[in-house]
Amino acid sequence: MDLENDPAFPLHRRGKIEIRPTVRIRDGAGLALAYTPGVARVSEAIAQRKDLAYDYTWKSNTVLVVSDGTAVLGLGDIGPEAALPVMEGKALLFKEFGGVDAVPICLDTTDTEEIIETIVRIAPAFGGVNLEDISAPRCFEIEDGLQERLDIPIFHDDQHGTAIVVIAALESAARLTGRELNGLRVVVSGAGAAGVAVTNMLLAAGVKDVCVADSQGLLCADRQTLTGVKADLVARTNPRGVCGSIEAGLEGADVFIGVSAGQVPESAIAGMADDAIIFALANPTPEVDPAVAGKYAAVVATGRSDFPNQINNVLAFPGVFRGALDVRATRITTGMQMAAADALSELVGDAVAADYIVPSVFDRKVAPYVADAVAAAARQEGVARL
Amino acid sequence: MDLENDPAFPLHRRGKIEIRPTVRIRDGAGLALAYTPGVARVSEAIAQRKDLAYDYTWKSNTVLVVSDGTAVLGLGDIGPEAALPVMEGKALLFKEFGGVDAVPICLDTTDTEEIIETIVRIAPAFGGVNLEDISAPRCFEIEDGLQERLDIPIFHDDQHGTAIVVIAALESAARLTGRELNGLRVVVSGAGAAGVAVTNMLLAAGVKDVCVADSQGLLCADRQTLTGVKADLVARTNPRGVCGSIEAGLEGADVFIGVSAGQVPESAIAGMADDAIIFALANPTPEVDPAVAGKYAAVVATGRSDFPNQINNVLAFPGVFRGALDVRATRITTGMQMAAADALSELVGDAVAADYIVPSVFDRKVAPYVADAVAAAARQEGVARL
Repeated sequence: MDLENDPAFPLHRRGKIEIRPTVRIRDGAGLALAYTPGVARVSEAIAQRKDLAYDYTWKSNTVLVVSDGTAVLGLGDIGPEAALPVMEGKALLFKEFGGVDAVPICLDTTDTEEIIETIVRIAPAFGGVNLEDISAPRCFEIEDGLQERLDIPIFHDDQHGTAIVVIAALESAARLTGRELNGLRVVVSGAGAAGVAVTNMLLAAGVKDVCVADSQGLLCADRQTLTGVKADLVARTNPRGVCGSIEAGLEGADVFIGVSAGQVPESAIAGMADDAIIFALANPTPEVDPAVAGKYAAVVATGRSDFPNQINNVLAFPGVFRGALDVRATRITTGMQMAAADALSELVGDAVAADYIVPSVFDRKVAPYVADAVAAAARQEGVARL
Repeated sequence: MDLENDPAFPLHRRGKIEIRPTVRIRDGAGLALAYTPGVARVSEAIAQRKDLAYDYTWKSNTVLVVSDGTAVLGLGDIGPEAALPVMEGKALLFKEFGGVDAVPICLDTTDTEEIIETIVRIAPAFGGVNLEDISAPRCFEIEDGLQERLDIPIFHDDQHGTAIVVIAALESAARLTGRELNGLRVVVSGAGAAGVAVTNMLLAAGVKDVCVADSQGLLCADRQTLTGVKADLVARTNPRGVCGSIEAGLEGADVFIGVSAGQVPESAIAGMADDAIIFALANPTPEVDPAVAGKYAAVVATGRSDFPNQINNVLAFPGVFRGALDVRATRITTGMQMAAADALSELVGDAVAADYIVPSVFDRKVAPYVADAVAAAARQEGVARL
């Protein structure tokens, strides 16, 4: 660490977010309304009708950003204190792009059940929960367990935020290269949080031929030791039953989606179909060097800001929660996620090009546009309270 | 509830606080510092040296304001959602007067052990915990249990905030009437959170003759069924062994401190010593009507803003936490609380009068002055990290 010269440190001094009053207390009359005795009348009203908390507290605009510090960026299990700068960054982006108030909570436990019960206990003041940087496979259980017990949206951004932007990018790339999603052969490298969510969303989007690889190779029926999420994936993917290394999967494939740190050799990429689409999203080192990928592919995307087509979750989560909060959604369904992906690709529209398949993260139209699509989908799917 | 005409409701619409970024993200370079990849270097540094969280996150300036909704104002057990407007009000006052970022957490559990473990698990991102509106006697156990397990200050405001301002007011009133604290006969009405803390602080301040009354009368050795905190109080108070009703205790007493809803008849007040001091702090209805109290007492204080001498916790908690956070205190000791009380009474100074025994809640000098005194005391007592 270079506390003196690295500009990240002065920028982070005392953190990146603060709590601010939205009403001013100028005199005794103001104090008597915002605090005792006036506040007691508001509390009494909510005690009688719990739903009024949405109208007269910050609940309607506020989400928890929760991590246990076990899978922070590429750093792994670094603990709750070290996860905090990332969660503050998330909160900053939530407000900046979505107008959403986000409270970072870093947990001093990594036990699945303890995490669920802790979040359930602190949830009453919040309109949603964004899970962040929690390692697989616990993240799946935690998300499901919370959604079962709470009537507010639970969203694991490493899964669904990533999947939404990947699907949006794929929709744009398919349009650009004149293909339909349901005809694509796709290989997903990585069977963690992002890999599982991307695969599920590909299937939901109508892609029929998806192969998933983990560090041991392709997930296929021969892999008899697979359990849990991976066994479940085998049952729903790999219709041609391809086994072996990721190279075998990539032979003739249209799309490569890398969401792991595993490197892929040039020879494997070379075997892909014409006009291939390569999303090498590992950070900071993409699975394939973008320059190498560009030799074989019609479209290349990475997770990095210094290459074209940055697949960045910030395109999704502010708008997704903005939309969910606007209609007081009880959950974020696959249909709402799909609506968000479609919206992102629509924003690219006719301007789509090999170096422009997703909007810029600084395009201020993105979050409101995504929010409207998500809110409409929530109403259609019957999970909106407004 | 009169949602249409009561001005408290429009003022509370969408709540009273928000999360705001303290750094602006204007371009890719800014995003790359505040979020990936720059934030990873800050997280890595904290993973190596946990104390750096105080320097490079909001932890150093941020406290939790936690309630389980069981003893909210005078409303009793109204649940977590209904407690939220009060906790937001607290957060507003924390920032407005102390510059402290406070995050309201309303718990969906009233179980002592569950409350402790929940707060311990969410504590890593926070520099302190302000407990609020948690019913006695659980509040004592929760405060002690948390302080045992966490190395950040735990402060139950209904206890210690009240006690600090009461002691400050008493110091001023004693000075005004030419008396010393150690010669006073004091009757405390109420053996809940505030009554216990006020009594403890009176004893710590050198008052030798304190009687405590609950709804059954004076706490004395004859009350054989007393347990827990009340039994403990009997052992440390009531040196003359007075038993019976509160009237018996008030016979010849110098000071009455009411921190319960129990009314006290005029005849009891009439029996107090000359130049009596009456703090009737129940809200909204004081234990004794201030006009009636004024017939017998030299100094009268209430908890209300529409009478002189408002005993309001907002005089204490913003400055107390400001001071504790400034030196990264590990706890808030009795000495620090005493320093806060002394500071408040010092601010009144020579201007002390029958209608001016504590500063105005709108006096902006209060919180910084209290903070300096608390920080100095923390250093003296060896609980400061800075």
